Amino acid sequence: MKKKFLASAIQQPCGDDNRQVNLDFSIAKIREAAALGSELVVLPELHLGKYFCQVEDHNFFDLAQAIPGETTDILSAIAKELNIVIVSTIFERRAAGLYHNTAVVFDKDGSIAGKYRKMHIPDDPAFYEKYYFTPGDLGFTPIQTSIGKLGILICWDQWYPEAARLMALAGADVLIYPTAIGWDKNDTKEEHACQLDAWITVQRGHAVANGLPVISCNRIGFEFAPHEQSGIDFWGNSFIVGSQGEFLAHANAIDTQILTAEIDLKRSETVRRIWPFLRDRRIDEFGNLTKRFID
Amino acid sequence: MKKKFLASAIQQPCGDDNRQVNLDFSIAKIREAAALGSELVVLPELHLGKYFCQVEDHNFFDLAQAIPGETTDILSAIAKELNIVIVSTIFERRAAGLYHNTAVVFDKDGSIAGKYRKMHIPDDPAFYEKYYFTPGDLGFTPIQTSIGKLGILICWDQWYPEAARLMALAGADVLIYPTAIGWDKNDTKEEHACQLDAWITVQRGHAVANGLPVISCNRIGFEFAPHEQSGIDFWGNSFIVGSQGEFLAHANAIDTQILTAEIDLKRSETVRRIWPFLRDRRIDEFGNLTKRFID
Repeated sequence: MKKKFLASAIQQPCGDDNRQVNLDFSIAKIREAAALGSELVVLPELHLGKYFCQVEDHNFFDLAQAIPGETTDILSAIAKELNIVIVSTIFERRAAGLYHNTAVVFDKDGSIAGKYRKMHIPDDPAFYEKYYFTPGDLGFTPIQTSIGKLGILICWDQWYPEAARLMALAGADVLIYPTAIGWDKNDTKEEHACQLDAWITVQRGHAVANGLPVISCNRIGFEFAPHEQSGIDFWGNSFIVGSQGEFLAHANAIDTQILTAEIDLKRSETVRRIWPFLRDRRIDEFGNLTKRFID
Repeated sequence: MKKKFLASAIQQPCGDDNRQVNLDFSIAKIREAAALGSELVVLPELHLGKYFCQVEDHNFFDLAQAIPGETTDILSAIAKELNIVIVSTIFERRAAGLYHNTAVVFDKDGSIAGKYRKMHIPDDPAFYEKYYFTPGDLGFTPIQTSIGKLGILICWDQWYPEAARLMALAGADVLIYPTAIGWDKNDTKEEHACQLDAWITVQRGHAVANGLPVISCNRIGFEFAPHEQSGIDFWGNSFIVGSQGEFLAHANAIDTQILTAEIDLKRSETVRRIWPFLRDRRIDEFGNLTKRFID
C-alpha cells in the first residue's frame, strides 16, 4: 500500500448523445490527470451518457452492457497504458431483466480489481433508479488495489452513514463517491444552496466520523428529460477532503475540472489517534441499526 | 406534540469554583430564554462547574450527586415556574464507586421526563472521562416530553453517526448535544480551525442523514487544569440547525449567548419526503455494524 499518492476526480459533462464521444472525452481527461502524476482517477457516475433515469423507458435497458465488456476492455487498456487506477461506473447488464448500477475499479496492470454494485437505490421524481437498477448484492466491501483499499460507494449511498462506516470497518483507506446529482429548476435559489450544502456536509461528515479521505465526483451540465420540457441541472461541486473533512480540492458548479489532491494515508493514522472514535463504539447497543424503525 | 416551538441553547462559562454561582448564572439565562418565548432550554455538559476531567483525582468524585437530588430539585422548580422544558447534564452518583455523565430532562410541569447516561466515553489527554464515568446503560432512547421526543446525546457521542441514527429510528424529533469541547493551546491555529469545522460538520451531517434539527450547546472560557500550567480553551460555537443541516443560529467562540431558533417539526416531515433516506436503508446488510472491525 502506498502511503501517499495523487488522486483526481474528473468533473465533466456526460450529456452527449454519442457514448463514444463521452468516453473519448473522459479518456482525454484521464490522460491529463495521469500527466499531472495522478495514480487514481475517478469518473462521475454513469459517465457514458445522459442520466437516462429521468424517465422510465424500457428502451434504455439497451444502454446496459456486460462487465467485463466493451467499455471495461477500453478502460483496462488505458489503466495499463498509463499505469494508474481508474474508477468507472457502468450500467451493468447481468442477465436478461437483471441490471445494476456498478462501479468497476481497474488496477495499474489493467486488471479489474473489483466491482461495487450500488446498494442504496433512489426513486424520486426524475431519479427513477428503482426501475432500472436491482440493489447491489456485493455488500459494502472495499476493493483492494495496488495503492490501497478503495471504499467505493455510489451517489444515493452518500447519504447513509452506515455505508461509509461499514467500508471503514472493512479497512477502506479512502471513500469514493461517483455521483450524478443536480438541481430542479423549479426549486428556489435558497433551496438549491441548502441542498448542495447538505450534500457536501453529509459526505464531509463521513470523512470526520471515519477518519478517512473522501473523493466525490459529480457531472455538470443541464440535461433535458426525454420528451419533457424539464430536466436536471447537475451541480458539479466535486470535491476531495482529508481525513478530518478538510477541503483539499473543490470544483465549481459549471466547469469541466480535473480536481487533484494528495491523499495521505498516514494522516488518517494520525487523525484516528487524535480522535479514536473506532475505539469507543458502543457495539453492544448497535443491534437496532438493522431495524427499519424502532416502534 | 407541538409542531413548532422556540428552543434556546445557553452558551456560558462554567469555570467559577462555586457551584451555586454557576447554577445561578444558568438560571438567570434560563429566565431570559423563557422571557423570549423559548419552550426548550439546553445547558452545556456538566454546567455546574469546571471541567474536572482534565486530571484524574479521586477527590472530584465528591462533586457527584444523586438524581433526583439537590440540583434536579432546583431545576425542576424552575421548569415548573417558567413552564418550559430544560436539559441539564449532571455528574451522577448512582452508587458508591459508580458514576455517570447524565443528562436530565425536566418537563414543563417540573417532573423529570427522563435521563440519558452518556454512552460513548472519551479518554484523551485532558479529557480523562473513562476514569470518572461508567458508560451509559440506558441505551439510545429519546425522552418523551410535552413538546416532542428529545434525542439527547452528550459530547463524545456527537462523533458517532450510529448514536444519532438510533435516536432517529426510535422516533426522536430533535437531536440535542450538551458538550464541553475546546482547543489545546499547543495546537496551531490551522489545527484549531480544522477541529472546530470537523465538530460542526459531523453534527450537521447527523441532521442531514436523519432529517432532524440539531441543537449543540457548548461552554466557553479558558480553564486551567488543576495543578497545571496548561488547560482547555472551550470553543463555544454552539449552534442550532434545521433538518437539512441549515444553520438557524450559531454562536461565536467567546461570548455568553442565548442562542434561540424556531424548531419546526413539520419541516422534518417535508425534508424526509424530499429525501426519503429512511425508506432505503439496506438493513439486510447492516449486521456488521455491531462488529468492532471486520477483519
